[in-house]
Formats: sequence, structure tokens, C-alpha cells
Amino acid sequence: MHYENVVDLKVTQVDQSRIDQVDFDNLMFGKTCSDHMMICDYEDGEWKTPEIIPYGPMLMEPSAKVFHYGQAVFEGMKSYKDGDGKVWLFRPQQNFERINTSAKRMAIPEFPKEYFFSALEKLLNLDYEWIKPGIGNSLYLRPFVIATENGVSASPSNKYRFMIITAPAKAYYEGSVKVIFAEEYSRSADGGVGFAKAAGNYGAQFYPTNLAKAEGFDQIIWTDADTHEYLEEAGTMNIFFRIGDSLVTAPTNDRILDGVTRKSIIALAEEKGIDVQVRRVSVKEIKDAARAGELKEIFGAGTAAVVVPVSAFRHGGEDFELPQLENSYAKQLKANLLDIQYNRAEDPFGWRYEVEIEK
Amino acid sequence: MHYENVVDLKVTQVDQSRIDQVDFDNLMFGKTCSDHMMICDYEDGEWKTPEIIPYGPMLMEPSAKVFHYGQAVFEGMKSYKDGDGKVWLFRPQQNFERINTSAKRMAIPEFPKEYFFSALEKLLNLDYEWIKPGIGNSLYLRPFVIATENGVSASPSNKYRFMIITAPAKAYYEGSVKVIFAEEYSRSADGGVGFAKAAGNYGAQFYPTNLAKAEGFDQIIWTDADTHEYLEEAGTMNIFFRIGDSLVTAPTNDRILDGVTRKSIIALAEEKGIDVQVRRVSVKEIKDAARAGELKEIFGAGTAAVVVPVSAFRHGGEDFELPQLENSYAKQLKANLLDIQYNRAEDPFGWRYEVEIEK
Ligand SMILES: Cc1ncc(COP(=O)(O)O)c(C=O)c1O
Ligand SMILES: Cc1ncc(COP(=O)(O)O)c(C=O)c1O
Repeated sequence: MHYENVVDLKVTQVDQSRIDQVDFDNLMFGKTCSDHMMICDYEDGEWKTPEIIPYGPMLMEPSAKVFHYGQAVFEGMKSYKDGDGKVWLFRPQQNFERINTSAKRMAIPEFPKEYFFSALEKLLNLDYEWIKPGIGNSLYLRPFVIATENGVSASPSNKYRFMIITAPAKAYYEGSVKVIFAEEYSRSADGGVGFAKAAGNYGAQFYPTNLAKAEGFDQIIWTDADTHEYLEEAGTMNIFFRIGDSLVTAPTNDRILDGVTRKSIIALAEEKGIDVQVRRVSVKEIKDAARAGELKEIFGAGTAAVVVPVSAFRHGGEDFELPQLENSYAKQLKANLLDIQYNRAEDPFGWRYEVEIEK
Repeated sequence: MHYENVVDLKVTQVDQSRIDQVDFDNLMFGKTCSDHMMICDYEDGEWKTPEIIPYGPMLMEPSAKVFHYGQAVFEGMKSYKDGDGKVWLFRPQQNFERINTSAKRMAIPEFPKEYFFSALEKLLNLDYEWIKPGIGNSLYLRPFVIATENGVSASPSNKYRFMIITAPAKAYYEGSVKVIFAEEYSRSADGGVGFAKAAGNYGAQFYPTNLAKAEGFDQIIWTDADTHEYLEEAGTMNIFFRIGDSLVTAPTNDRILDGVTRKSIIALAEEKGIDVQVRRVSVKEIKDAARAGELKEIFGAGTAAVVVPVSAFRHGGEDFELPQLENSYAKQLKANLLDIQYNRAEDPFGWRYEVEIEK
């Protein structure tokens, strides 16, 4: 399925690429955008024809609803270049569907599929040189939608802007992370918007995460807001626990983002014959398992970070360390995943999506 | 306490006011902004000197964090003009404190008090003609802060913009509203950001509110996310119940906004000798009271809407109508409040704040 030529996008190319000014060995995640971006406005009940234009600032009214009411959603995906210079996306259909799921919950109109895929392919063609080969390198893609109607009444916007910006990335987290299991703060409520990639979900985590950082931790593992007894997910990653040789992860619900990496890890683990259990995981179970020496690994999984081992966690004033295993599930599954993403292995699940490069 | 001359704001006035183009009899709430706005940037760890400039669009990078992570908070206040042309604010200190409370929860640096008050006073002097006298008329003031750092990594911004825009307003809701008590969706979680005027809290309500509208209702009264058994607040109003002759409202907590109107209504009602009960109110209690003929009124209270009677509510598939009382608490308390706000009555609580007009 390729949509590249389906929609006739308006394209305005940069006169001069900025790529020579970029130090690809020292990239800060998401900081440097590539030459082009996609912009598409919704007005009078419809999405207009998407345009590709040079990346740069845009004029916004101070009364635009996105600033006041956080009516905004986004996605995060990566494009990968293999040794032959071919460009790949990983399960992009999932991101497309998810941004529309998020949009629906935030009362934002759905975006057409042809526009989404045509824009991605065109951008990746234009900014082909920004995608560097080699494991860990990628061009991160950030589709997002913002409410652009002017006026500070608290009601849904009747104008929106869908954009895709892209930024070259190296691996997001290196090494492992230390986490705190949430006991007081929470990320989302039942019946809320936690399952959506709604902008406000992220800003709301910064303060508790800062408190965790002040205690020497990197991230928070969120628990259910009602009881704080069940482990749910991290700020931008789903979370897996290896107890004995079983891999356990929480089921998705309306508080948890249905991560593409999570479901891919589940499939890869099952294919390897690992016992995968998708069920509620209590803090107590994990602490008991840790004390009994049964807790072998915890790791997070998400597009930006791929797979990141947790080296330690804190809960109820107690600190737990996790062993660094030689042949951890985290390491194996990450390698399997990267091999598929970078076209270095078979793709039994049909997850790879080749971007047609016109040259 | 007046801060007007404390800070030397940079002021750039409009060449030509837009006021003649405005139809003050047909204002849509928050749609038309006045001539000037305040803008103040935070960079390198400090708030720069605020500037007053003509209202208009501003340049924003597509990667600015506010678009992606909803790191944004706001306030809503009104300025009133009395029969002598004097200009008043209502408990502005409360809004100042609250925007900093909201900011803290969203990991945004606190804004200095002198800047806030100096900017308000300067704006109200420059846009004096935009404040129309007469009950119901006001110049609505919208202070807000947005995260302006570029870069799509999910971490707190190191740049912010504090702005104040203003918009002439007539009464927000006319008449009464029909509401649904939330049974499935929720507004905020324990340990979340519901008590903050964080942008994302509002966008998250649009979809459930649209569903309520499709059923013929105006608003949702949110219940606690855990059990949906306790009534909390409306989308932009706190909520009061008159059972017999007692006035009951939920205590504030970390899910509920601590409304200025709410606390003023409580004080006014107590001063009138009304039995005010600040305690949890269950859906069951309200339905039972309605069936027993004890539920005399429900009304919402907030800056934009002032006081709005609820004429009907739905819960569990049951519909309830409320009587329209001749001498309702809603009507009396609204009149008392407006009289203080518009300088038509004594101000025993010291709530009014006179803006010094330099003429
Ligand atoms: C809250 C949250 N959980 C989990 C994930 C992981 O999802 P994915 O694997 O689709 O990137 C993300 C996003 O990246 C997220 O924002
Ligand atoms: C969620 C919410 N509840 C209640 C209120 C009422 O607060 P105030 O009376 O301070 O305007 C508001 C804001 O206006 C609000 O946004």
C-alpha cells in the first residue's frame, strides 16, 4: 500500500538545505528539525490540501485555542535507512490510526489516510539525506494537530492545523534508568484521556518527574490513580516485568497508551516462546518478586527510547536494585526489533513499510 | 496595594484603535480582543521586562513545547466599570496566586506579582474605552503562560511566554442550563492536575461535552473518577446545591478548581445567614432530595458565567426538572455579587480592587 502519488501535495522546497550545519554525532533529541515540514489546515468542515514547505516559524494568534485549552494531539514515529539506502517506516498504519483515536477523544476531526501517507513519503523523499543509516540513527517524525481557532471560549475549535515535522535522532536513552513507582501523583483517570496522545498528558507529568529527578531518579512508573497499587506505564514508554522467565505487562485501558513498541515486543517475545502475560501487575507482586530473587528485569518500551532497562526502583521508601543480566530479554528483544526496523532480518509480521524513494 | 508605577513596562500603542469596528451589543464570548496585550518572556532563568504591544499574531516555531506537551496554564478575570467611569477588578490577588499554583503543578516558573499587577493596570488604562459600563458588561482578562522552547523531547521547557489578552464580554450564559451528571467520562484524577487551570484539562472535556450536547444538554457535572458517586464541578464552574434551605457544595481537592466565585458565594451566603455546608455531595443524595421535593436549586458559579441556574439534570437514564423559584438563592447571590463587582453596594469583604486610571 503506497499513497505517495495519490494526493497532489503542494510542495515548496528550501533554497538551501541546513543539513551542513548539523552535527549528526551530537544530536539532542527533537531539537533540530529537518528542512521541510507538512502543514494542512482544517476549515469550514474539511481538511484542505496538505502543503510541504520549508521548516520555520508560523504566525499564531494569542487567542488560538491550543494555547488555552490544550486541544492538541500528536504521534511519534521513526524512519530508518538500511545499508542499501532504502528507507523504512515501522507499522505506520498504527500511528495513523492512533492519532485519529487521540483526535476523536479530543474532539478533533479525523485526518485522511491518503494525506498522512502522501505527506510522510514526500517529506522522506525531500529530506532523504537527513535520514542517516546505522543502528540507532533515525529521522524522528512528529505528526501533530493543534486547535487554531481564535477565541477564548472553552469549546471545541472549528479550525485545526495538522503538521508533520521531523528531527534526526540518535538513541534517546543510553544505558538504563532508575525509576520511582508513583504513590501520590497520577497520570490519568479512568474515563479520562490517558490512552490518547493528548498534549496535556505530558505537561502534567513534568512536575512529579522533576521531584523524582531531585531524588536521583530518571522517570516515574505510573500506577492507577485510584489505589496506586497497580503498575501502568512510564511517561513515554510502556513497561514490562520479567518474573522468573515470564514477561508481564499491564493490559491497555483508557488510562494507558496502546504503544506500538509494546505490542511488537509482545509479539516478538511470544514468537521466541517466552511466556507473555498481559495482566494487571501490582506493586506488591513486583516487590515480593524482587525480595524473593524472582524479579529478573524491568524494562520500558517506546518508539523514542526503543527498549530501556530499569536498573533500580523505589517505592514506599524502599530501594530495589535489578541485576544486569548478560542475556536479558530487554537486550534480545531490542536487537530483534531493531533488526526488523533496519531491514537486517526477516519481517515475519509484515511490520516494515518501505518508502518509495524517487531517484 | 497598587503596583502600577512599580515596574516600567515597555509600551507600544496602536496607531489606530479597532474599537469602532466592534458591535458591543453582539459579542461572542472571547472572540474579539481589545487593542493591546501584554507579553513577557522567560529565558535564561528569569522573566524579562513585560511589554505592552498591539494585539496581534506572533511567530511560533512548530516544535514549541506548548503544541506538543500542553505545558500551559491560564486565568480568567473580569474588569468592571461603574457609573462614574471607575474601573474595578474582583479579588485579583486570588487569580494571581492561582496562576502561580497552576504554573507550579505544570513545572512552569512563577510570575512576579509586580509584573502581573502593573500589566493589568496598564492594559486597563490603555483599553479603558473597551470596558463598557452596565451590569453584565465587562472586559474579560485572560492571563496565560505557554512553553515556548523549541524541541520535541518530553521534558519541561526552559522558555516561557506570559501573556495577558483581553476581550469585551457580555454575560456568558443567559438563562439556565441543563446538565448531565458524569457516569463514564471524567475530568481529572486524584494526584492529577484538576485543581490547576492547566490547558489540557479543558480540551479533554470537549468530547464528553459534545456527547452531552447531542443528547440535548449544555454541560456535564463531573463526578469523582473513582466511583462517579460524588458531584464535583462543571467544566468552568463550581457547583452548588440547595437542599431545603441549606446550600451545599463540594470541598475543593486536587481534582477541583478552587473557584473565586465559589468562595465568594460561600461568604455571601453565610453573611446572609444561609446554612452553608462544604462537604461531599453524592449523586444519590441529590436524586433522593429531588424525589422528596427537597432539592430546590442547583447552580453553577464561575467568573465567566457568574451564577447560572440548572433547570434540569440527567443521571442513570432518569431526568429531573428543577423548579424555577421566584426568589432563588442563585438570583439573590448573583445580585449581591454583581453589586459588589460593579461598585453598587458596600464591599464588606474588601474584594474590590480599584484600577487607577491616569487621566
Ligand atoms: C504515554 C506513553 N506510553 C507509551 C508510549 C510508547 O508508545 P510507542 O511504542 O507507540 O511509541 C508512548 C509514546 O511514545 C507514550 O507517550
Ligand atoms: C474547572 C473550573 N471550575 C470552576 C471555575 C470557576 O472559577 P472562578 O470562579 O475562579 O472563575 C473555573 C473557571 O473559571 C474552572 O475552569
